[in-house]
Amino acid sequence: MDCIFCKIIKREIPSKDVYEDDFVKAFYDINPKAPVHVLIVPKKHINPAQGFTQDEVEIIGNLFLAAQKIAEKEGVFQSGFRLITNSGPDSGQEIEHLHFHLLGGKPLGGLVGN
Amino acid sequence: MDCIFCKIIKREIPSKDVYEDDFVKAFYDINPKAPVHVLIVPKKHINPAQGFTQDEVEIIGNLFLAAQKIAEKEGVFQSGFRLITNSGPDSGQEIEHLHFHLLGGKPLGGLVGN
Repeated sequence: MDCIFCKIIKREIPSKDVYEDDFVKAFYDINPKAPVHVLIVPKKHINPAQGFTQDEVEIIGNLFLAAQKIAEKEGVFQSGFRLITNSGPDSGQEIEHLHFHLLGGKPLGGLVGN
Repeated sequence: MDCIFCKIIKREIPSKDVYEDDFVKAFYDINPKAPVHVLIVPKKHINPAQGFTQDEVEIIGNLFLAAQKIAEKEGVFQSGFRLITNSGPDSGQEIEHLHFHLLGGKPLGGLVGN
């Protein structure tokens, strides 16, 4: 499978890692949009365009526990953070492997960018 | 509890409803930021600032199944949609009851607004 996130998870491509558990791996975005910009990626290759199974629902739920730990670790749990996932063309999704952006470290403005 | 989302869930405050199941209720945002702007709210009062329990992890996972159904219903599953949740001051979170914004119906621009 030629998926960049699968390659990062298998350590075939390097990443600046932030957190890892049984369900997810998290690493810094190489093109950050805020002082804290972490990508949280399930270890399983989940393509959001194909719909979720019950197994995947469990993974996504646990991803949110991880997100809170990452927010604490990055010092933005109190100051505030945003979690975003994109699906499909209008969203700007670039990689067909489910991932969440954790953003923080400054006021994040409106919900929709320019 | 003086929570506006709890009041909407109990039908004490009206809402333009989109979807409901055992875990969540979804309704249109009264101040939409995109042609499709739905709020997806767990029926249980979950304050993200207090951290999640295992029960809440299950609710959040199931919320993503609901989100996909809502995206289909609103006609944005193929064209693309964004799911956002905010926590804390820098994020612009206004209501202390976990909620997700489902946005779509136009290109959604960058991850961070102005």
